[in-house]
Amino acid sequence: MNHRKKQNAEGRYAYDGLDRVIHEKARLGLLTCLAGAAEGLTFGELKRLCDLTDGNLNRHLKQLTDANLVVLSQDASGPRRQTVCELTDDGRQRFLAYLAELERVISDAGKQMKQSPAGRRRLAGEP
Amino acid sequence: MNHRKKQNAEGRYAYDGLDRVIHEKARLGLLTCLAGAAEGLTFGELKRLCDLTDGNLNRHLKQLTDANLVVLSQDASGPRRQTVCELTDDGRQRFLAYLAELERVISDAGKQMKQSPAGRRRLAGEP
Repeated sequence: MNHRKKQNAEGRYAYDGLDRVIHEKARLGLLTCLAGAAEGLTFGELKRLCDLTDGNLNRHLKQLTDANLVVLSQDASGPRRQTVCELTDDGRQRFLAYLAELERVISDAGKQMKQSPAGRRRLAGEP
Repeated sequence: MNHRKKQNAEGRYAYDGLDRVIHEKARLGLLTCLAGAAEGLTFGELKRLCDLTDGNLNRHLKQLTDANLVVLSQDASGPRRQTVCELTDDGRQRFLAYLAELERVISDAGKQMKQSPAGRRRLAGEP
């Protein structure tokens, strides 16, 4: 299959690897900040970093835990008990696979933009 | 503001630039293939390239036209009249802005993965 054919193949732009649970904007932000937190993050930290209300944070964490992407635990070591959220091993692996598909979108979009004259002008910084 | 502070600033992972109309998986695929089509694409081509049903394609195109990201027109030059879909100039500009934010997500996620030991192992290709 030559390049041209592959570019136009059926479902070429379906992006099935963009898992909907991960792709939603707020959950994408949550997973991104959790990805670097080896010790996990508390509800308060997640609310602040992702600029979410209590209700929205709870709703999205429910979906992430249901999908086994994150796990919640209780930390009673401090002055008050806190809920800590961590990425699971499975979640980390699935997030990496998702990011690889996201990179494919950006690469495709970049190539497509270059193909059209208006896109070339924009990419060159012209109005 | 030092790097560490900026990394942990309020709303750092809110990604407000991820326009929800563009971010939805099917619409992201539609915009990506339209970005390279200077002459636009027909309903049939979009269905095939993005692997969408008639109903889903119509629903997503309605949202994209309502948001002035794409425009539909009639092409009567061939043997039968066809609806052609094109990215608007405004749509192209907003799609580029969206892609810039998406690149920020990938860059952030890459940095975060490198920070955690499990992420470093995975990035190095270890199990």
